[in-house]
Amino acid sequence: MSTSPGLVRTPEPPYYAVIFTSQRTVGDQGYDAMAGRMVELGSGYDGFLGIESARGADGRGITVSYWRDEASIRAWKRDAEHREAQRAGRETWYADYTVRIARVERAYGKP
Amino acid sequence: MSTSPGLVRTPEPPYYAVIFTSQRTVGDQGYDAMAGRMVELGSGYDGFLGIESARGADGRGITVSYWRDEASIRAWKRDAEHREAQRAGRETWYADYTVRIARVERAYGKP
Repeated sequence: MSTSPGLVRTPEPPYYAVIFTSQRTVGDQGYDAMAGRMVELGSGYDGFLGIESARGADGRGITVSYWRDEASIRAWKRDAEHREAQRAGRETWYADYTVRIARVERAYGKP
Repeated sequence: MSTSPGLVRTPEPPYYAVIFTSQRTVGDQGYDAMAGRMVELGSGYDGFLGIESARGADGRGITVSYWRDEASIRAWKRDAEHREAQRAGRETWYADYTVRIARVERAYGKP
């Protein structure tokens, strides 16, 4: 697993990626604390391989988390504290978002 | 296809995502002009479904482009002007990067 600075190093494919794209509402409203807590909590789940996140000054953000398989993703989605964060995300933090679950088939890095 | 502000609207899965995570070097060095040109050029390719990009103040960025199928991705990767940008990316613009090709299997948005 990886939550440290620098790009995430993942094992050889296949594995899964959850691509979360979002548009934040204005103001923190507890968002930063929640985001940090969700990384801490999710990275403890079996099958977690890493997470990468970027958000521009316009409030548009992309977070990609990497997982061994779909069962790991489902288990994390059902986590009680995560479900509460999902609810607050829908109601407060995100003006819009899309979640995509994808199977990584090939990967390569800088030579 | 979609290159406009707001989140990208993609068709029902399956389709493909190219997840490009990167760490920029310091200074523009022609990067912004190239990035805009690549969006313009790539979005004209058959099978292009949309692109989303975010980069934080730390230089860490994520760009996800969406494609109908793997053949579309391969055709775009071979584009001559894109190949020149890939070369300059390796040599000048990116301290590090990873490319992941993934098959989107499920997707959902804000209710």
